[in-house]
Amino acid sequence: MNQRELDQLSINTIRFLAVDAVQKANSGHPGMPLDAAPMAYVLWTRYLKHNPADPQWIDRDRFVLSAGHGSALLYALLHLTGYEEMTLEQLERFRQWQSLTPGHPESHMAGCVEASTGPLGQGIGNAVGMAIAEAHLAARYNRPGHELFDHHTYALAGDGDMMEGVQAEAASLAGHLRLGKLIILYDSNRVTLSGTTSLAFTEDVAARYRAYGWHVQRIDDGNDLAAISRALQAARETKDQPSLIVVQTVIGFGSPDKAGTFDAHGSPLGVDEVKKTKANLGWPEEPTFLIPEPALRHLRSAIERGNTAEDGWKRRFAEYAKQFPELAREIERRFRRELPASWASNLPEFPADAKGMATRKASEVVLQALARTVPELVGGSGDLDPSTYTWLKEDGDFESPLRPREGVQGTVGGGWGYAGRNIHFGVREHAMGAAVNGLVYHGGFIPFGATFLVFSDYMRAAIRLSAIAQLHGIWVFTHDSIAVGEDGPTHEAVEQVLALRAIPGMVVLRPGDANETRCAWQVAIERKTGPTALIFTRQHVPTLDRRVYAPADGLRRGAYVLNPEQTQPELILIGTGSEVSLIAGAERVLRERGMRVRLVSMPSWELFANEAAEYRQSVLPAEVTARLAVEAGRSIGWERWVGPTGDILSVDRFGASAPGDVVMKEYGFSVDNVVARALALLAW
Amino acid sequence: MNQRELDQLSINTIRFLAVDAVQKANSGHPGMPLDAAPMAYVLWTRYLKHNPADPQWIDRDRFVLSAGHGSALLYALLHLTGYEEMTLEQLERFRQWQSLTPGHPESHMAGCVEASTGPLGQGIGNAVGMAIAEAHLAARYNRPGHELFDHHTYALAGDGDMMEGVQAEAASLAGHLRLGKLIILYDSNRVTLSGTTSLAFTEDVAARYRAYGWHVQRIDDGNDLAAISRALQAARETKDQPSLIVVQTVIGFGSPDKAGTFDAHGSPLGVDEVKKTKANLGWPEEPTFLIPEPALRHLRSAIERGNTAEDGWKRRFAEYAKQFPELAREIERRFRRELPASWASNLPEFPADAKGMATRKASEVVLQALARTVPELVGGSGDLDPSTYTWLKEDGDFESPLRPREGVQGTVGGGWGYAGRNIHFGVREHAMGAAVNGLVYHGGFIPFGATFLVFSDYMRAAIRLSAIAQLHGIWVFTHDSIAVGEDGPTHEAVEQVLALRAIPGMVVLRPGDANETRCAWQVAIERKTGPTALIFTRQHVPTLDRRVYAPADGLRRGAYVLNPEQTQPELILIGTGSEVSLIAGAERVLRERGMRVRLVSMPSWELFANEAAEYRQSVLPAEVTARLAVEAGRSIGWERWVGPTGDILSVDRFGASAPGDVVMKEYGFSVDNVVARALALLAW
Repeated sequence: MNQRELDQLSINTIRFLAVDAVQKANSGHPGMPLDAAPMAYVLWTRYLKHNPADPQWIDRDRFVLSAGHGSALLYALLHLTGYEEMTLEQLERFRQWQSLTPGHPESHMAGCVEASTGPLGQGIGNAVGMAIAEAHLAARYNRPGHELFDHHTYALAGDGDMMEGVQAEAASLAGHLRLGKLIILYDSNRVTLSGTTSLAFTEDVAARYRAYGWHVQRIDDGNDLAAISRALQAARETKDQPSLIVVQTVIGFGSPDKAGTFDAHGSPLGVDEVKKTKANLGWPEEPTFLIPEPALRHLRSAIERGNTAEDGWKRRFAEYAKQFPELAREIERRFRRELPASWASNLPEFPADAKGMATRKASEVVLQALARTVPELVGGSGDLDPSTYTWLKEDGDFESPLRPREGVQGTVGGGWGYAGRNIHFGVREHAMGAAVNGLVYHGGFIPFGATFLVFSDYMRAAIRLSAIAQLHGIWVFTHDSIAVGEDGPTHEAVEQVLALRAIPGMVVLRPGDANETRCAWQVAIERKTGPTALIFTRQHVPTLDRRVYAPADGLRRGAYVLNPEQTQPELILIGTGSEVSLIAGAERVLRERGMRVRLVSMPSWELFANEAAEYRQSVLPAEVTARLAVEAGRSIGWERWVGPTGDILSVDRFGASAPGDVVMKEYGFSVDNVVARALALLAW
Repeated sequence: MNQRELDQLSINTIRFLAVDAVQKANSGHPGMPLDAAPMAYVLWTRYLKHNPADPQWIDRDRFVLSAGHGSALLYALLHLTGYEEMTLEQLERFRQWQSLTPGHPESHMAGCVEASTGPLGQGIGNAVGMAIAEAHLAARYNRPGHELFDHHTYALAGDGDMMEGVQAEAASLAGHLRLGKLIILYDSNRVTLSGTTSLAFTEDVAARYRAYGWHVQRIDDGNDLAAISRALQAARETKDQPSLIVVQTVIGFGSPDKAGTFDAHGSPLGVDEVKKTKANLGWPEEPTFLIPEPALRHLRSAIERGNTAEDGWKRRFAEYAKQFPELAREIERRFRRELPASWASNLPEFPADAKGMATRKASEVVLQALARTVPELVGGSGDLDPSTYTWLKEDGDFESPLRPREGVQGTVGGGWGYAGRNIHFGVREHAMGAAVNGLVYHGGFIPFGATFLVFSDYMRAAIRLSAIAQLHGIWVFTHDSIAVGEDGPTHEAVEQVLALRAIPGMVVLRPGDANETRCAWQVAIERKTGPTALIFTRQHVPTLDRRVYAPADGLRRGAYVLNPEQTQPELILIGTGSEVSLIAGAERVLRERGMRVRLVSMPSWELFANEAAEYRQSVLPAEVTARLAVEAGRSIGWERWVGPTGDILSVDRFGASAPGDVVMKEYGFSVDNVVARALALLAW
């Protein structure tokens, strides 16, 4: 068998593993694997640096299947190249209960899957994040003669990806950052779920990517292996621009009746058409899931190549570790996902202060301290650093060393190149979300992304995926309520805290003062099993006197009693965030009237719900039924905590444009009103 | 005073009204009004067809301030050109409680504001929707010699707009649709909130828009009125492409110390700098809010021009009405927002059917019937027609008559040009949302946008704005739960119903069978005060036998008793959507065991919450405390309806990839499990 025959045999093996998997599941997308198998084959056999024997090798190339509906293609590649967990049985159990081969790739199910994709466009953003990760690690750790970090990020995208806004944002950002090691193969089969792209999508994608500053190539025939290989080579040689390779393909290639049609996109070909397609491409009808030995041997050589490559890297790493032992330990630590021993040693304690400070401001102070001890803490905002206060002052801007910095205002962090830790995402919240996820997927980072709370809506799809994939990323949302004031309802969060709480696996923390803010950051840094959303105020809130009130680290349990000395409460006031000081003020008034009021700060429903029943009962005793929750957000869900006879002071309409204190007062967020509502409860 | 002097006087009047408003509020964005006043002035005085005496004139040009943070510019223009409600006092009360001049424009506050903008990029999408509206109305109603609909849509956008994904999606769509009457002025001042665009945004926007198929022009000097005028003229003469005019400006123009810097973007200039700026541009320091008489007279001539233009149009409309009385009545009716008398006359009744049908399928049947009687019902999906079943079969595709339809698959609606009512939005959920909002803003439409429920996350910012602006649009979300099955957690809605319920002013309807689906559409069509979200299943659900169960129009009240003959219930089962048939099945089992079970279908929390307490008590009697809610979504908020001793069968984690019935069963959604949970409640 000559190379050409072996190539074709291998490609058809990939194709029909995918087709058989879809057909057996009677569900899935056969069209893309049929057309994209050649480009995937060329990439995986000639360029992709990976080691199936060690899916976690730090310096492997990353491959993101952005067109996640083509998952069967990915699973076939993983099985054929020798990833142990991706057995043939898993392929046969495609899309079945608890298989490692769900309908769309899920990285937390199978360690060899680099990213959870499927919602279109996200994979492009993930890939941009991974390329940022590689560039940063290389700039920070590589030394002359020691190119420890030197890998590419590849993504395979489809027409649907290319229509999504998150993709557009991410591509614009990647072009700006000149991420030369990012290479996207665009499988342009011109068919989507509902028809041909001529229905809705006739832009010139290549020209658009050129406008972003990308290196762009076109291949007219998706089966032209030599052309694909040349293009990949040229893309790899282009060091100063990300690369897009537009590959014209025919969806469902090989299917006599369905190739080139949208019937091949999202449904199994059908038993008869599978037969015809196999016949057409010279493939035996039976058995299904056929893997010819020469193809397997050829594709499994990835293990040997991978072991060789990784062994070489390990030797280089050992050399590096001799010369730079601290750096080497730091790298290993980061990828083991362990925090530095003394990471929390210098966190600030904030003194009691009646005027206090905005929690976004307290967050800034905490963040600076964390940045000094936790080098994997890297992130940025959606063009809002001067407002979210998330700029790491001692760590420079992440930027292309090739891009002149003339006329830059608004930051003083120039000259760091890719070693900077502040990523300027631009007004691109959604791409920020997907890129932050990409940084986690890559490994070696605890990344954060920041914007105003109300604009969490712009990036919600990415936030959701961070929760599905159980990613240790941190979402920082400031300007958290109607107290934003003059900017008005379009900029005032009302339902966003609830909407974030609604996402399974998310921990939402709305700290009540500066010291709770410190503890909230600690939780977010420590919590490895999923994302944390930190919700901060724009406006000042008093820093509670912790000599009077309980220590702020009660936050770790989600809710805690601020005044435990009051052991016989007749009323419980529950507050979160800026409303904690409000209930504290009300308690003082009520106490003067002789009432026994318990104060509960409840920064996180999720953490509190995870506590044992005894603890929950100790904070919210069932026998105290007069309860008032105060939160400048929607009331939905608070019934769980205040019970049937409780009351909720909330915001169940949109905000308004006026000075923040006016809006808060008009909406009932005043000590007087809290007192009045509390008294009404006791009368009840 | 010569024209040049009058121009400058007028422009500076606009500038300093805005600057004084910001300074008085001590909050806002002075930089953009200073730099964009010249282009706005040229547009508003030489091209914009509008009548300040009648802000609702149907054939006026639409002007969208996409860069909504420059609202003071818009308010100044509206006041100066003579919109009655936009008094000088309103400008003086900029950003104050209950003024018509909130921080960002709000169309429901002031009728002369065309769109609620501020969240960046949305205005571009709104403008695309308005241009679609004009093109459709022209195609549908204009007749040779009767150009009733012949107006432009203008938008003024900034750098922030140009970074947002929603903008990219909308621009790609507009280019595809060749919306020649859409003209965007891009105020390229190269400064955003956090600094200069060189920090994060260096793409070639002009080239990108050309790649979308737009006509693109550049103006190097934002103060060059002649160049601006020529460009607008050329844009208007370009009939087959939308136009982008890139205008290079200097933010905060005229401010000696802040022009060209990001200090001029989002904060008042300050008292001293206002003085210096006024001196620099030859403007008196006092009084503030100065409006020189010649400028006012000049700008107020808009009223006379507007009256003349509208009078001419009214005469033409009268002529038209003579020749085409039915069409004229239809136009008037649509813009009065009245439904046709017999709009609901031919809606289907679905017979009882144990196998039943997916509610998305029932929706399709209802939608076809509605399309016949409600011509203003126009919409489409995000590339999902074959799955959302939202294609209007008799009404053709909305498409450019100039774009060849070769190779189109997936639809049979060709040849309608802009008269088609099915808009192929492409995989652009966010732009779909903003464009649907634009259709409502334009007037004459009840538009809908459809996608999978899980992808409501992609368009959430637009959905929120539809609620803020109280827009009568309809969001159609199918594939509503883990029952989606094989596509897995990335495609399975869990928290989305709750997240939609969280949006104030939104009515969320999750009908339980085909007949409830009909009623849900009726509510959505009738409900003029805000948006409605319709939530449909992918999978079959039984069509309940309404001879046995109560009529489906109980849906209108949000929740209703399905089996009212059971007057002494010991247990209440509450279900929504696909879970209604589940509780009905459980009730049969429990009845056989001698238990008295009430069944409540609860398609909408919001409608039910709006009912009188007596009705709510009649459905959910306080004395029946054994209650079980069953919904394949998050439990949060259900406590309100089941009370402290109730139970909730819900989905509080992400879904899974497997056949839908398997996933539902594994997650506990079976008659057996509902029965078991019910029995446990009664034991309790």
